[in-house]
Amino acid sequence: MAVNTCDPALRSWVKSAHAAGTDFPIQNLPYGVGRVLVPETTQAGADVMVAIGDQALSLRRLAATAALDGLDDGVKQACREITLNALMSLSKEQLRMLRERISALLEEARVETMPHRAAVEAALLPQSSVFPMVPAAIGDYTDFYASIFHATNVGKLFRPDNPLLPNYKYVPIGYHGRASSIVPSATSILRPKGQLAGAQGTAPSFAPTRMLDYELEVGAFVGHGNGFGHPVPIDEAREHLFGLCLVNDWSARDIQSWEYQPLGPFLSKSFATTVSPWVVTLDALEPFRVSAYERPSEDPASLPYLNGEDDQRRGGFDVRLEVLVETPRMRDAGEAPFLLSRSNLRELYWTPGQMVAHHTSNGCNLRTGDLLATGTVSGSETTARGCLLEITARGAQPVVLRNGESRKFLEDGDTVILRGYCERAGAARIGFGECRGTVEPAR
Amino acid sequence: MAVNTCDPALRSWVKSAHAAGTDFPIQNLPYGVGRVLVPETTQAGADVMVAIGDQALSLRRLAATAALDGLDDGVKQACREITLNALMSLSKEQLRMLRERISALLEEARVETMPHRAAVEAALLPQSSVFPMVPAAIGDYTDFYASIFHATNVGKLFRPDNPLLPNYKYVPIGYHGRASSIVPSATSILRPKGQLAGAQGTAPSFAPTRMLDYELEVGAFVGHGNGFGHPVPIDEAREHLFGLCLVNDWSARDIQSWEYQPLGPFLSKSFATTVSPWVVTLDALEPFRVSAYERPSEDPASLPYLNGEDDQRRGGFDVRLEVLVETPRMRDAGEAPFLLSRSNLRELYWTPGQMVAHHTSNGCNLRTGDLLATGTVSGSETTARGCLLEITARGAQPVVLRNGESRKFLEDGDTVILRGYCERAGAARIGFGECRGTVEPAR
Repeated sequence: MAVNTCDPALRSWVKSAHAAGTDFPIQNLPYGVGRVLVPETTQAGADVMVAIGDQALSLRRLAATAALDGLDDGVKQACREITLNALMSLSKEQLRMLRERISALLEEARVETMPHRAAVEAALLPQSSVFPMVPAAIGDYTDFYASIFHATNVGKLFRPDNPLLPNYKYVPIGYHGRASSIVPSATSILRPKGQLAGAQGTAPSFAPTRMLDYELEVGAFVGHGNGFGHPVPIDEAREHLFGLCLVNDWSARDIQSWEYQPLGPFLSKSFATTVSPWVVTLDALEPFRVSAYERPSEDPASLPYLNGEDDQRRGGFDVRLEVLVETPRMRDAGEAPFLLSRSNLRELYWTPGQMVAHHTSNGCNLRTGDLLATGTVSGSETTARGCLLEITARGAQPVVLRNGESRKFLEDGDTVILRGYCERAGAARIGFGECRGTVEPAR
Repeated sequence: MAVNTCDPALRSWVKSAHAAGTDFPIQNLPYGVGRVLVPETTQAGADVMVAIGDQALSLRRLAATAALDGLDDGVKQACREITLNALMSLSKEQLRMLRERISALLEEARVETMPHRAAVEAALLPQSSVFPMVPAAIGDYTDFYASIFHATNVGKLFRPDNPLLPNYKYVPIGYHGRASSIVPSATSILRPKGQLAGAQGTAPSFAPTRMLDYELEVGAFVGHGNGFGHPVPIDEAREHLFGLCLVNDWSARDIQSWEYQPLGPFLSKSFATTVSPWVVTLDALEPFRVSAYERPSEDPASLPYLNGEDDQRRGGFDVRLEVLVETPRMRDAGEAPFLLSRSNLRELYWTPGQMVAHHTSNGCNLRTGDLLATGTVSGSETTARGCLLEITARGAQPVVLRNGESRKFLEDGDTVILRGYCERAGAARIGFGECRGTVEPAR
């Protein structure tokens, strides 16, 4: 009998899972991979984990007990891997069984009759003792440009008369990113060096970027890939996605503007991309599916291969997003980070499903663990701009922080924190945790 | 005692290895991975192999005998893998030992006294019985734009007054390619569908490309990577490269021109990229190292991070390249393929070492098995244009083939064949074999 694991009435015996404002109630159960920090030991491996409240449940440890008995061997094996790839490639039915089992093991109402309580408690670790890893072996990382507000804001800076290029409303613009330099949350970000254009025809210099920026993005991990030469139809597209995470696509704007013609951004992005530790499954996001962005009536219809009835009806996700900055001065003074902007994933011009359909429309094969990021998620409001390039109009209008400091771009020591969560009446809050990184001076 | 494995006087007892015009004399010994086609069996695995004449020597089979005794366990283990990654990450000394051993086992002068002749013969398979695989697990694929002749020819088509962008002579322009759709030679290439621009402001259509093209490129495989945040200095850059292969970066020009602003080519390239089976090591290419391309005196000097004394002196490679096309009519008539162009790797504006130094200059980490392709290798002559876009001026001047057929772009059934080889007096010919693919109609 299927269990509604999103039922807002469910409660966990892990008390922090129903603390106010927690990202990880029992309705969420996002997956991640972490290294356990055991003092005075060096543990090389990593565990597949599930977040619950402020704890992380090690599925590797659980799979060594009887607590997962009855699940397929394939499911149990996936719990013992050091990436989520095997888990992401499980069948929908296998994933449902695993989710229901984990939910049952953590559910308050079953705690008295639960046979594996000791095993589950032994597999629970404080999240603060876990060092997050990039959750999947990412074969290819693709970055889209799905916010029309971002594309317009950026376009205005470079082409005031013609901010949006003619292809934008037809093509879910994207480009290949660099997979090797995707790093987990909390990894320090070295200020990169690169070529900076010289003034009026003089030679460029090679120097640390003076325009270091973040980009607030969401990433979708591919669960099931598609075969080489086999496009994915739009209304099957979302079935290929496993879950979402937060992505900070760090960018060096001066390097970017000099290098990007004619083949696009390269070293201005490839120095680092940070992903959040926890992958929130589409199952957990089910209550927050919404219709696709409603385009202005004068906009053209999507071409048929991008226009799916189901995708239009519930291909969007109502995920609230925030960017905060914590400067060294705030840190020293014990002040809270400063909120730079808020936006929402539902305002994207293209849905994640449209990204999959477009990406595969030429026969390109996606593989389990591939990461499709949205591009900067900006909204229609001026308070919803997802990068400093937009907020400060390329440094022309510095943003003033609460403590009187100002920023054109990021300075050394600044920590950027991305947050994401879903909230609505009648549903449990589903959060993404944090994606953070601190800028270190150039070497 | 070190052996000069490039000595042109060396001969193999494998007779085809000194047939006139062979790509694979004993001085070459390129590595590859192949599946052995054994009739009436289904063999799932793949063998690391070395090409010698028209044969392929299975190192997996050899490693199961005493023929590799005395070599490190790490070396023998690398020979048993199903990709070249472990082999590519061996130390210089380990690779030298392996190369010397393979050379010794195949050398004519040692055949009488050689203890492992039977084992070696049992590990030799006709290349015609081996199905080539992509030789490495390619984590990231980067494609450069290193031919100034290509950049200029293409630029002229789109910007007649300003063909070369201001960054070109400073920045080794590159972009991230798609790793998942890299396929081995002989894989059929489905004509991709995609968005084609509508006439003057009308909506685009979604249809099979009408401008399918090849690009003649060379790829360099990374042997030893670099750490995240640790740039590779220019004069150490070449030490990070393991060897070269041929690359056909199939391109759909109509999809490309509509989609590429502002983030660069995406679906116009990601449908397929073909690599040749054999990776020719830099050791084998040692006799063909030449000085970097001599720039016109009016060109600016490279910035210091790209300007290495050793790289300038011998960072180029004298590799002759050819593209041929075989149309269905030629095939039916038993005619030889038609030579479309010839060029040379030494004419690239940027050396492979400069590509490595540039790529890592922002701290981006390269990993073993990564593929860095050159971009289309065109030369200064009109006969040295490495793609149809250039040869036919975007279809305006169709190329007439020997049999009277003509081509603006590729047609269904056309086979494109890339070849590469090194030749000079006093050295053995070092060849790359072929990189081929046949266009199939869109589905």
